[in-house]
Amino acid sequence: MSLNETHDPALRSWVESANAPGAEFPIQNLPFGVLRRAGSSEAFRCAVAIGDYALDLAALGESGLASNPLNLCRGTTLNPLMAAGATVWSALRAQVSALLSEAGLERPVVQSCLIPLADAEHAMPAVVGDYTDFYTSIHHATNMGRLFRPDNPLLPNYEWVPIGYHGRSSSIDISGQKFPRPVGQLKLPDFDEPVVAPCRRLDYELEVGIFVGEGNAIGHPVPLAKAESHIFGLCLLNDWSARDIQAWEYQPLGPFLAKSFATTISPWIVTLEALEPFREPFSRTGGQPFPLPYLDSASNNQRGAVDMRLEAHIQTPAMRERSRGPERLSVSNFNDSYWTMAQLLTHHTMNGCNLRAGDLLGSGTLSGSTDGSQAALIEITKGGKEPITLRTGESRTFLEDGDSIVLKARCDRDGFVGIGFGECVGTVLPAVSG
Amino acid sequence: MSLNETHDPALRSWVESANAPGAEFPIQNLPFGVLRRAGSSEAFRCAVAIGDYALDLAALGESGLASNPLNLCRGTTLNPLMAAGATVWSALRAQVSALLSEAGLERPVVQSCLIPLADAEHAMPAVVGDYTDFYTSIHHATNMGRLFRPDNPLLPNYEWVPIGYHGRSSSIDISGQKFPRPVGQLKLPDFDEPVVAPCRRLDYELEVGIFVGEGNAIGHPVPLAKAESHIFGLCLLNDWSARDIQAWEYQPLGPFLAKSFATTISPWIVTLEALEPFREPFSRTGGQPFPLPYLDSASNNQRGAVDMRLEAHIQTPAMRERSRGPERLSVSNFNDSYWTMAQLLTHHTMNGCNLRAGDLLGSGTLSGSTDGSQAALIEITKGGKEPITLRTGESRTFLEDGDSIVLKARCDRDGFVGIGFGECVGTVLPAVSG
Repeated sequence: MSLNETHDPALRSWVESANAPGAEFPIQNLPFGVLRRAGSSEAFRCAVAIGDYALDLAALGESGLASNPLNLCRGTTLNPLMAAGATVWSALRAQVSALLSEAGLERPVVQSCLIPLADAEHAMPAVVGDYTDFYTSIHHATNMGRLFRPDNPLLPNYEWVPIGYHGRSSSIDISGQKFPRPVGQLKLPDFDEPVVAPCRRLDYELEVGIFVGEGNAIGHPVPLAKAESHIFGLCLLNDWSARDIQAWEYQPLGPFLAKSFATTISPWIVTLEALEPFREPFSRTGGQPFPLPYLDSASNNQRGAVDMRLEAHIQTPAMRERSRGPERLSVSNFNDSYWTMAQLLTHHTMNGCNLRAGDLLGSGTLSGSTDGSQAALIEITKGGKEPITLRTGESRTFLEDGDSIVLKARCDRDGFVGIGFGECVGTVLPAVSG
Repeated sequence: MSLNETHDPALRSWVESANAPGAEFPIQNLPFGVLRRAGSSEAFRCAVAIGDYALDLAALGESGLASNPLNLCRGTTLNPLMAAGATVWSALRAQVSALLSEAGLERPVVQSCLIPLADAEHAMPAVVGDYTDFYTSIHHATNMGRLFRPDNPLLPNYEWVPIGYHGRSSSIDISGQKFPRPVGQLKLPDFDEPVVAPCRRLDYELEVGIFVGEGNAIGHPVPLAKAESHIFGLCLLNDWSARDIQAWEYQPLGPFLAKSFATTISPWIVTLEALEPFREPFSRTGGQPFPLPYLDSASNNQRGAVDMRLEAHIQTPAMRERSRGPERLSVSNFNDSYWTMAQLLTHHTMNGCNLRAGDLLGSGTLSGSTDGSQAALIEITKGGKEPITLRTGESRTFLEDGDSIVLKARCDRDGFVGIGFGECVGTVLPAVSG
C-alpha cells in the first residue's frame, strides 16, 4: 500500500466510528500511543487509534499477525519503534492501514485486539530523554518582549536563530495531568525583597510537541534535507508557565522553575505521513531576512509548514458545576511558525548535539498575529492588565485553582479526510502549603 | 561499622595501594562507578574504587557474599542503588569497608572480585534523566556579567535566587570524551549578519557534579533539612562552553547550543559519607542578604559547605609530543560557592519539580575571588583580551584543536586521610566540515 493510498479519501475502515464525519481518528490518521485497559494491572502497550478504538499492537503481534515492525511494539513505550527509523514506521502504518481497511483480511483477529478508547488509560508514549522548548512564533516573541522588555521587544538574534532552551523531562505527563500551583520566589512591585508564595500569574501555553524518531550520533549534525526523516510525529503540548516566578528568575540563564513544575502532552502522536495532505509552503510576511543556508532549502520552502488549526479552551470549576463545556480562549495555526519543524531539528544538531529516539521538542507558544490568536493568557490579558470575562460571568487574568485547560487540534483540507489530535487536558490544583 | 569507623584515620585496607600517602581512593573514600575490563564484551558493572583497583559489586554479589544492597548493583547503572535511599547506600558502604579493611574476612573471595583500574573501561555511572546546571559562584557570575553586560554585571536576582538552567543530558559522557569543536551561528563584530562557522571561543568550566539519589514525587518539595539525604554523591564536571555561540544565542532564554555539544564528568561518585570529615560552615563574606527561610537552617550554616580543592589543567598537542604533563590553569574550592548543594536541591524542588535517581546537578563554574582561581578561560584571559603563555611557549586565549582539559579534586584535612576524585579529561577535536 503506497503513501497515497493511505491518504485516499475513499479509504474507509470496517471500524465504523472511524468513518464518521469529523472523526478525529479516521483510517487516514492512525496515530500512535501507549495505553492499557483502565483500572487493569496489565502492562501498558503500544497502540494505534482508529475511530473510537485503540488497536493493541502487542496483542496484534501475539495474534499470529506478527511482523518485524510489530516486534518493536512489544514494550511499554514507543522508543524502540521510533529508533527504528522512518522506513519501519511507514511499513507498520501501511500494514495497520491495510488490516483496518474495508478490504482488510483477518478482521476477527484484528477485532479481538481493539480496546474501546472510553475504557483506555494512557501513559507517556515514550521515555523523553531530553525535552527542548523552542520559541517559534514571532508574534508570541514580540508580545512577550513588549511585556518583559518594553524598550527592546524583539531581540536582534530572533530573526536569525531558532531560539530554544532545554526544558525539564521529569515533569512531563500526558493529558489528565493535575498539578499543584507552584510556589516560588516572587518579586512583588511593592517590596524591596522577594517573597516565597504561590504563583499568582499562572498561565498556559498552546504548543505543538514534536517527537524525535531515529536519533543522530553525537558530532553528526542532521542536514535540513534529512531532518523530517528524524521526526516521528506531532502531539499537543501545554507548557504551563508561572509568569511571576519567570520574571524574577529568568535572567541571565532563562526559564527554570517557572516551567519545570509540569508540562502536559496529548497522548496520541500523529505521524508526518498522516500530515502529508496538510503540508504547506513555509512563508514569512514581515520582510525578515532569508534563513542562513543551513536552514534553507527548496523543499522546506515548498512543504515545510503544516496547516494545523490549534485551539485552547478553559473549563472553570463553575463551568463544571453547571455542566458547561470548556470555553475557547484562543485559536491559531501551526503554520504561523517563524521556523519549520525541520529547521528546529537541524538547528538543534548543528553543534553536534545528539538527539535520541523519544526526545521531545516543543514549538513554543503558537500565537498568531490577529486578535483571538494569542495562545497564552499573558498575551490575551496584556500582562494581566485587561481581564477577560467568561460566559459564566467569571473574570480571569491568569489561571485560578481548579481551572482546566483543554488543547485541541485538527487538520482539514478540501478533498481530504480531516484528522484530529485528541485532547490535551491539564488541571491546576491548589498550592501545597509548606 | 559506624560512620565514624569508616572515617577512622587508622583504618587501613589489605589492598596495599589504598594505604599509600596521597592515594585518591583509600578505604575512607570508596566512591561508586560503572566499568568493565577494557576491550572485553562483558556487561558494564557497578563497582567501588579501592587503591589501584575497582571492586566489582556484581561479582561480589554472585560470590555468595550477597546482601540486599548488592542486589541493587546487578545492573549496568547505579540508578537502582541511588533510588534505594541513603540508608541503603550507607549500609552497602559499611559492608564494603568492612570487607576491604585489614580485619576483613573472606579476603580471597573479595580479592577475586578486584579489577585493576589500569585495565578498566568506564561507562556513565547512571542514566541521567535530567541535567541541571547552576551558577553558584558569585565570583564567576560577576566576572561573566562584566563581559556580557558591563553596565550591569551582577543582576538583582543573583543574591536571592540559586540561578540555574536545564542542561542537555544526551551529550554528557565520562572522562575520556572527545568531541568535535562545535559549529554555530556567530555574530562577528565586523559583520551585520551572523555567519555559520566553527566556534572560535571554546572554553572549559570547572564544576562539581551532584548526583541525585532518592528522588521526590512531583508536587512534593524537599525541605532543606532533608535535602542532603537525596544526594548520592559528587563528581567533577566540565561544562564545555562555546562563548561566541552563547553570546549571540542566549537572550532571552539562556544557553542552548553553546553548551549542548558535550559535557564531561569524572567516572567516580564520591559519597557524602566519604566527604563528612571535610564539611565546613557555609559562609558569605560580601554582606549579602540572608537566604530566605526555605534556604536557611542552622545545620546548613554549620556544615553545608565542602572543603574540596579543585584544579583545571591543560595539555596541548605540543605538550603531548614532548611528553610533558598537563599545565595548571586554575585552582579553586567548592567552598567558594554562594549556595550549598542542599540549597540547590531544595530550590530546584520548591515549585514541585520532581527529581529522579541519577539526575545530575552542576554547581556552575567554581571560580574563587583571587588570581589563579578563575575556573574558565574567558575569565582568565579577560574575555580573550589577555592571552596566557604556557610553559611550552604557546599562547592561548581559548582552546585549540587537540587541547585536553584535565580536572582534578582532593579533600584533605589535618588528622584525616585525604581523598581524591579521579580525573575528568576531555579533548577537543577539529570541527566536522559541513
